[in-house]
Amino acid sequence: MEITYTNNFKEYKTPENLDPFTIAQQQLRHACELLEYDEQIYNALSEPERLIILKFTMRMDNGSLKTFKAFRCQFNSARGPTKGGIRWHPDENSSLIKALAALMTWKCACVDLPLEGAKGGVICNPKEMSNNELERLARLYIRKLSQFIGPRIDIPAPDVYTTPQITAWMMDEYEVIKGIKAPSVITGKPLELGGSVGRISATARGGTFCIREAIKETDISLKGAKIAIQGFGNAGSHVAEILQDEFGCKIIAASDTKGGIYNKNGFNVHKAIEHKKKPQQLWV
Amino acid sequence: MEITYTNNFKEYKTPENLDPFTIAQQQLRHACELLEYDEQIYNALSEPERLIILKFTMRMDNGSLKTFKAFRCQFNSARGPTKGGIRWHPDENSSLIKALAALMTWKCACVDLPLEGAKGGVICNPKEMSNNELERLARLYIRKLSQFIGPRIDIPAPDVYTTPQITAWMMDEYEVIKGIKAPSVITGKPLELGGSVGRISATARGGTFCIREAIKETDISLKGAKIAIQGFGNAGSHVAEILQDEFGCKIIAASDTKGGIYNKNGFNVHKAIEHKKKPQQLWV
Amino acid sequence: MEITYTNNFKEYKTPENLDPFTIAQQQLRHACELLEYDEQIYNALSEPERLIILKFTMRMDNGSLKTFKAFRCQFNSARGPTKGGIRWHPDENSSLIKALAALMTWKCACVDLPLEGAKGGVICNPKEMSNNELERLARLYIRKLSQFIGPRIDIPAPDVYTTPQITAWMMDEYEVIKGIKAPSVITGKPLELGGSVGRISATARGGTFCIREAIKETDISLKGAKIAIQGFGNAGSHVAEILQDEFGCKIIAASDTKGGIYNKNGFNVHKAIEHKKKPQQLWV
Amino acid sequence: MEITYTNNFKEYKTPENLDPFTIAQQQLRHACELLEYDEQIYNALSEPERLIILKFTMRMDNGSLKTFKAFRCQFNSARGPTKGGIRWHPDENSSLIKALAALMTWKCACVDLPLEGAKGGVICNPKEMSNNELERLARLYIRKLSQFIGPRIDIPAPDVYTTPQITAWMMDEYEVIKGIKAPSVITGKPLELGGSVGRISATARGGTFCIREAIKETDISLKGAKIAIQGFGNAGSHVAEILQDEFGCKIIAASDTKGGIYNKNGFNVHKAIEHKKKPQQLWV
Amino acid sequence: MEITYTNNFKEYKTPENLDPFTIAQQQLRHACELLEYDEQIYNALSEPERLIILKFTMRMDNGSLKTFKAFRCQFNSARGPTKGGIRWHPDENSSLIKALAALMTWKCACVDLPLEGAKGGVICNPKEMSNNELERLARLYIRKLSQFIGPRIDIPAPDVYTTPQITAWMMDEYEVIKGIKAPSVITGKPLELGGSVGRISATARGGTFCIREAIKETDISLKGAKIAIQGFGNAGSHVAEILQDEFGCKIIAASDTKGGIYNKNGFNVHKAIEHKKKPQQLWV
Amino acid sequence: MEITYTNNFKEYKTPENLDPFTIAQQQLRHACELLEYDEQIYNALSEPERLIILKFTMRMDNGSLKTFKAFRCQFNSARGPTKGGIRWHPDENSSLIKALAALMTWKCACVDLPLEGAKGGVICNPKEMSNNELERLARLYIRKLSQFIGPRIDIPAPDVYTTPQITAWMMDEYEVIKGIKAPSVITGKPLELGGSVGRISATARGGTFCIREAIKETDISLKGAKIAIQGFGNAGSHVAEILQDEFGCKIIAASDTKGGIYNKNGFNVHKAIEHKKKPQQLWV
Repeated sequence: MEITYTNNFKEYKTPENLDPFTIAQQQLRHACELLEYDEQIYNALSEPERLIILKFTMRMDNGSLKTFKAFRCQFNSARGPTKGGIRWHPDENSSLIKALAALMTWKCACVDLPLEGAKGGVICNPKEMSNNELERLARLYIRKLSQFIGPRIDIPAPDVYTTPQITAWMMDEYEVIKGIKAPSVITGKPLELGGSVGRISATARGGTFCIREAIKETDISLKGAKIAIQGFGNAGSHVAEILQDEFGCKIIAASDTKGGIYNKNGFNVHKAIEHKKKPQQLWV
Repeated sequence: MEITYTNNFKEYKTPENLDPFTIAQQQLRHACELLEYDEQIYNALSEPERLIILKFTMRMDNGSLKTFKAFRCQFNSARGPTKGGIRWHPDENSSLIKALAALMTWKCACVDLPLEGAKGGVICNPKEMSNNELERLARLYIRKLSQFIGPRIDIPAPDVYTTPQITAWMMDEYEVIKGIKAPSVITGKPLELGGSVGRISATARGGTFCIREAIKETDISLKGAKIAIQGFGNAGSHVAEILQDEFGCKIIAASDTKGGIYNKNGFNVHKAIEHKKKPQQLWV
Repeated sequence: MEITYTNNFKEYKTPENLDPFTIAQQQLRHACELLEYDEQIYNALSEPERLIILKFTMRMDNGSLKTFKAFRCQFNSARGPTKGGIRWHPDENSSLIKALAALMTWKCACVDLPLEGAKGGVICNPKEMSNNELERLARLYIRKLSQFIGPRIDIPAPDVYTTPQITAWMMDEYEVIKGIKAPSVITGKPLELGGSVGRISATARGGTFCIREAIKETDISLKGAKIAIQGFGNAGSHVAEILQDEFGCKIIAASDTKGGIYNKNGFNVHKAIEHKKKPQQLWV
Repeated sequence: MEITYTNNFKEYKTPENLDPFTIAQQQLRHACELLEYDEQIYNALSEPERLIILKFTMRMDNGSLKTFKAFRCQFNSARGPTKGGIRWHPDENSSLIKALAALMTWKCACVDLPLEGAKGGVICNPKEMSNNELERLARLYIRKLSQFIGPRIDIPAPDVYTTPQITAWMMDEYEVIKGIKAPSVITGKPLELGGSVGRISATARGGTFCIREAIKETDISLKGAKIAIQGFGNAGSHVAEILQDEFGCKIIAASDTKGGIYNKNGFNVHKAIEHKKKPQQLWV
Repeated sequence: MEITYTNNFKEYKTPENLDPFTIAQQQLRHACELLEYDEQIYNALSEPERLIILKFTMRMDNGSLKTFKAFRCQFNSARGPTKGGIRWHPDENSSLIKALAALMTWKCACVDLPLEGAKGGVICNPKEMSNNELERLARLYIRKLSQFIGPRIDIPAPDVYTTPQITAWMMDEYEVIKGIKAPSVITGKPLELGGSVGRISATARGGTFCIREAIKETDISLKGAKIAIQGFGNAGSHVAEILQDEFGCKIIAASDTKGGIYNKNGFNVHKAIEHKKKPQQLWV
Repeated sequence: MEITYTNNFKEYKTPENLDPFTIAQQQLRHACELLEYDEQIYNALSEPERLIILKFTMRMDNGSLKTFKAFRCQFNSARGPTKGGIRWHPDENSSLIKALAALMTWKCACVDLPLEGAKGGVICNPKEMSNNELERLARLYIRKLSQFIGPRIDIPAPDVYTTPQITAWMMDEYEVIKGIKAPSVITGKPLELGGSVGRISATARGGTFCIREAIKETDISLKGAKIAIQGFGNAGSHVAEILQDEFGCKIIAASDTKGGIYNKNGFNVHKAIEHKKKPQQLWV
């Protein structure tokens, strides 16, 4: 069962050793060349409209003071408010944030959403922080950005290591500062506070739409197709669930960073997920 | 006539080849060591509280689009609104802006002003821009920053290549956006629009206060002292004027980037300034 | 094929030589008499709630200063935000603006929309202005009115000589001033920026609804009816299109200010429109 | 004792039968000619920047509805917030309001105040209104204008038939709407609510300064000079008081609309004022 | 025809002689015990988040000054804006207001609305006040609360003795203060100003849903069931209408504070309502 | 050395067992009787304009949740913003808060300050709370009140158990919420953050002015007068200092809750204060 994939576009090679934003800019330049846009247009589109770099100092549970560096990049604003996640990671950096904000911009434009792209982040290690420290960090980040975000300005979302609980704290801090209820200031909230049903599996669902469309270019039928899942995290396990439950695929293999399982006759995805869930995990 | 200068402090050497902000951080570290502040305090003070990096695209007089990169760094905000100039220069960069904002912070703190330091800039070459283009650039910069400046937030000022006329445009743009008259949003305005008398010679006057205090450590009298001025621009020429008119010094030499004059019996500073002023110049 | 038109209402004659607003007031007085409203009610309804007359001076492309007079009339506000177009015309005047705002008010009330009427205008000749000048004028008008308009106050729209492009500039200026995205501040935007599909032909479509309802009072069938269009501009040509395509009429004649065509067997409206479109035109 | 008055300026005749604003514009044109300003400058200065014409309907004590027309003209705003009185008079009209706002503008500019000129008014007859009706009218006027006035926008003041009590109601209404205490929104308040000491006699005092300066051009001494006062209202009677008490003049005659008094040896101004005050009067 | 009612819950007795809020707190304590919530949770939930007690003085029609005490209790705000009626009654008191706000909170939570509970009131006797006095009181109440209510903060509604007309005055006052149209600031508006169709009978309709669900626990059929209505006011008469018209019940008896009617074969509810409506009444 | 004290006013006895606000109201009634004000005026003045009762739940250092009840009473607002301290005490209650706000109102009015009275409080025991808990409480209180206070609305101050450090936290929280620097939102700040020099001894200094004026009614001279101080806390010890240093009195006795000292020849107050200061104390 072999899939032949034909790429009609000019081949584009990402050079090695480039930082993420330089890569994104090269992709844009490539697109501009294909569209025969001149240099002025490339220049107008290739840098973020607003990159805010923050510093704030927080008292930790042990009484010490820790200073954090944080970011919010609003890449463009022509077509609507910006939108994008907040990443909490020790290796966060402005190049990555700018690159991801640019990609959000282009993704929104491709599907004609009245939104533009943003991305934010804090250099920190959430795995080493207490729940109280996480709450204080979430609130501090919003306190420093409250004038720059909002339902009609820039709408954050959870991303790497920022859970629905963290968005709830962020929403609450924004609402206290503004003196109003404003659930639309952030997405990815817990369902009880106005979060969207289906958000958790949305990335996976989008992926299965791609699979569904791509398969039409082949003579394969999804019904009964044998599927191996490489990466059985949040996205991968939901993809497996949807493919099994809604498209009638047979999941025969799955692997993650710790190992993998294989059964040539297929296995029940729900049981695999249940098995994997036992140790508590942060949102990734 | 020899001045012996005694430095009681530990010697501090600025390493070669460092960018301006790294140098400023090293000065801070040196100060923290002298004050026996621990690493936590140094970390809390050594990065800007807010650095905003902007991009905007402007139509030039010839119809082309030009994209500009701009900055505003608000280094700290504990003691009051931030304050600092806006620089327009082709070599503007975030390291220099951050360094100058840090220095503003420390200068304000040393003299116990209820203000903190800021600095802003646009990468551009004002010498190659028409008056209309300068106005559009001034207004665009404020449009992009109008939420982040203000009399109780951050108060800009003119700096390299930003004239009183440019501050007038900036003030007007801020007032249109806010719908109120707000002359306190920016300093260095033309006198007719609420500017401060004495601002043009303020840097020079401050310098002569330093001279007046420093000379007390010596046995020299300013009255009749012979003075050579190296750098006869805005600051230097006003220093010369004040030293001659108010302190009774004798100015015997002056030089600038184009050459110099010398008269061992002294010369009249006002005539030298008048001579130099003939070709129209941007504010430097 | 003769249509007998029976008017059950008392005949109302518009006196000659009256200015538009006096005519509108006489229509209101007539209506008040029919409804037996007393003088107090007439007085409360017969003058605009707010008429703003503005002056602003703009630098033209040739460096000269030109001063413009502009208007915004918000006729009433009891039932919701006001709504109405912005006219750019050399003969614009406050009587016409007030009359049109009054008519908007009464039209909205008749169909029970939660909106009231407004109208605005600038005395200018857009045909003699460059694209840059049109943009500057659009932005200046909004800068002067930004406190008086808004999605919950007064929502402008394009009107005589104000194109979708002009509304886009107006929206952008409003958004910059308010610091938020606010596409609902103006209607008639380009589709790419949130404009409404169908707006361009909306006036014509409304006209055809009137024809459809009026014809029911007769024994004529629209299907196959022969139609002559007097005035083949934006409204007239769309009316022709809809009557031909959706109601099955036969368009046999059309005329505009330059001439007319006639074919007793009918002609294809789309081809007539295509033929007429060749020279580029401002929105009328 | 004859005063010879020499006018060095070109004679300027005000044409008969002109409305007040046309007269004011002719004065401006005359000034522009003297200053050799070109037509562009005259055009930029000769029309009000913002004229707001309002209508509102109020329930009178007898239960009837009465509709009022009102004005606020903000003539210019280049040099600071606008400033000017609110007139309540049956013959109020936009030409007069515009003319008086223009004069306020030019008066402020002549003495280099950081203020511009405004003027407002309501067409009404305060003499026929109850105290409750006056209060409701004062509050309604501010409710309709609350977005367009303010300490940093436009600062009203009492004028014809608007007493300190009326300004107190206006201030209170503004403060309720804004949710803050804002005594600087209006001048001419009662002293107990932050009014300025000396305001009531300020017009008169200004007049005596003119007399004092003008008299220097003659060989007359004010000390002991015999003075006749034509118009013994608020301004005239205070002028008489100041001339008598502070400049040592002898007041020998005074007249108002009802009659006059004459005593060639002079009379005591305070007693004349006391006599006149007996019947209660509105502020004029 | 006997209904046996079985209560599976532990019996809960309301102690005699307790004020309303103490009773509500005891109900909460009972619920917390059933849910095994600890004391900390009970404490966090048992007091209102914000209780505002106001005093204002109003001039009555007869010229006297009357001072009113008023309340607004916003019980909780975790799940959305608060929502609740405004009561005008001579016996209004803070205990009742707090209790009703608590009940609103718990009702909203039970049906998972994104709203929280509030309640307000004024100690007054609307039956003894003129229409003008009612309007002034309505407007004064909003003037004192305008910063604390709003579509995204707290949304009032009519309640005891506050009619749709009173909500219209309140909405208008809020809109004047905020300078925008904001019909969503209050519910229970007249239909012409954006009120909700069906609101008047909503309480009754909710009651019939309870009857419909409760009856399922029995072997009775609503179709043809004989119904006696005790309390034939706004709620009771609409219940009777719905039961008769939509559920096919037979209304055989109805009583109110003045008396009752009985017909063992049933009577037409609409005629009974028509009969009762003849004397004009305030909203109860 | 005997002081005869003559009271010309009617004797006023405070009844036993009354709560503080009832006592204050009786004092007002007494004053109204003396001034022959009628009941309407008493009613308008005898209740607070706004009393806000808050509840909020805070996580303590040990992880438990604690719910606090808090108050802010703004007694009147006719003459300016309200002003008054924030008390943190386990026995805080609304009667005391209202009484103290009323007294602030009357004190401000007596000396014709453009301010009115307020008072706030939290029921808590600061002596049992950690520094972190005190900071969280200070910030929470402001978060709940941020819409109700401000330089032009209501300006808090420190009071029982609220130190300058606590006002610094409150100011910072207010500034974060408003996004501006606003040191005028609270008085009693640390000197480094804009506090007023002399504030700590201001109560005492006011007391000595009373002594200085009262003594004039007698034939005693302060110079050399022997003084006994009952209550040697913040106020008493500063009174002693001022009487000794500025008025030349001889302090011969002082006592506080722990005991007293006596020396018939007088003692040095500064040494007594130094002695007492040794154990660290909260502000009282």
